Amino acid sequence: MFVTVEGVEGAGKSTLLNLLARELERRGIAFLRTREPGGCGLGASLRPLLLDVSSRLDSRAELFLFLADRAQHVAETIRPALERDEWVLCDRYADSTIAYQGYGRGMDIDRLQTLNDYATKGLWPDRTLLLDLPVETGLDRARARNGREGLSASEGRFEAEEKAFHQRIREGFLDRAARWPERFQILDATLAPQQLLQQALSGLGIVS
Amino acid sequence: MFVTVEGVEGAGKSTLLNLLARELERRGIAFLRTREPGGCGLGASLRPLLLDVSSRLDSRAELFLFLADRAQHVAETIRPALERDEWVLCDRYADSTIAYQGYGRGMDIDRLQTLNDYATKGLWPDRTLLLDLPVETGLDRARARNGREGLSASEGRFEAEEKAFHQRIREGFLDRAARWPERFQILDATLAPQQLLQQALSGLGIVS
Repeated sequence: MFVTVEGVEGAGKSTLLNLLARELERRGIAFLRTREPGGCGLGASLRPLLLDVSSRLDSRAELFLFLADRAQHVAETIRPALERDEWVLCDRYADSTIAYQGYGRGMDIDRLQTLNDYATKGLWPDRTLLLDLPVETGLDRARARNGREGLSASEGRFEAEEKAFHQRIREGFLDRAARWPERFQILDATLAPQQLLQQALSGLGIVS
Repeated sequence: MFVTVEGVEGAGKSTLLNLLARELERRGIAFLRTREPGGCGLGASLRPLLLDVSSRLDSRAELFLFLADRAQHVAETIRPALERDEWVLCDRYADSTIAYQGYGRGMDIDRLQTLNDYATKGLWPDRTLLLDLPVETGLDRARARNGREGLSASEGRFEAEEKAFHQRIREGFLDRAARWPERFQILDATLAPQQLLQQALSGLGIVS
């Protein structure tokens, strides 16, 4: 079972992943928790390049770095775990690239879909949990977190972007959810974490 | 004028580029000399990843890293130089990716062509000097050079590959030269450097 968690900044992806991971542990289900970018050795080298607010990456160069990270991550980490019959819980995946670079920055959606098919050799999640929430709320949460933790250089490349951009991304995720309704479960990210967990578990076929 | 120099390992690309650069200097022609991978800030970070013999890069991840480097290099370095009316002399470019990854490793040639068109926004060289030589000779030269200089970790990823692989690459370069005869000039890399320089200069329309 390959599960991804998607959503705009501040939607609560890490919190939900923490709760899910604890729940799988409690039930003795073997799983691997990972993330993009940066879930493999190559990605760890690329992550600072991709998240550096001050870098002036060409948009296509940035896209290719995400794809390189994803190709390696799938080949080195995700596929082997699935072949060992483990669950994979991944924080962001191809849907994020398409929502951010495609809907957000206006790159061609079909091309991005094809490139992601190629990078992953056709591996798409079995289930994608989309944490949906109003853009304002997400940005407020992200800002509060940055304020609290201090804004580091390796953080906030996308968080520095404007609200309209995030609105397009939110709509992009919802568009994709409408296109693949069997794969996506849309969760109302303004709900309490425990409620989200219960909805996610029942969507994943795990009865609490 | 955008000039690339291509060829298998040990073909003498650097020597020819050194001589060409000196000749342009002598004539007061403004130029930029660069290379791939590693001709821009991003590429400098990626070059060790790409040339490391010990790394286990997935072939698609490797391709995307080359494309990321190329997209950034074109946007940040090559196009601005051409817009300043400088010549650009580049050691390897898209033809190398297609010869090595396509002909050498069997990735789909048309897809590689399309991906390179996308990464470069359609920028192909005005002139490509192809240093052609028998694979044996090239490998001998490369081995001698590595022996002389000591084989460093950042060297020789491709040089460690077998002869048949290099044969396919040589044929790949020749195939491309046959397809774009106005762009390519095939040079016999077994000739003396000064002879190669004279042929290259006259091909570039610079009378000696």
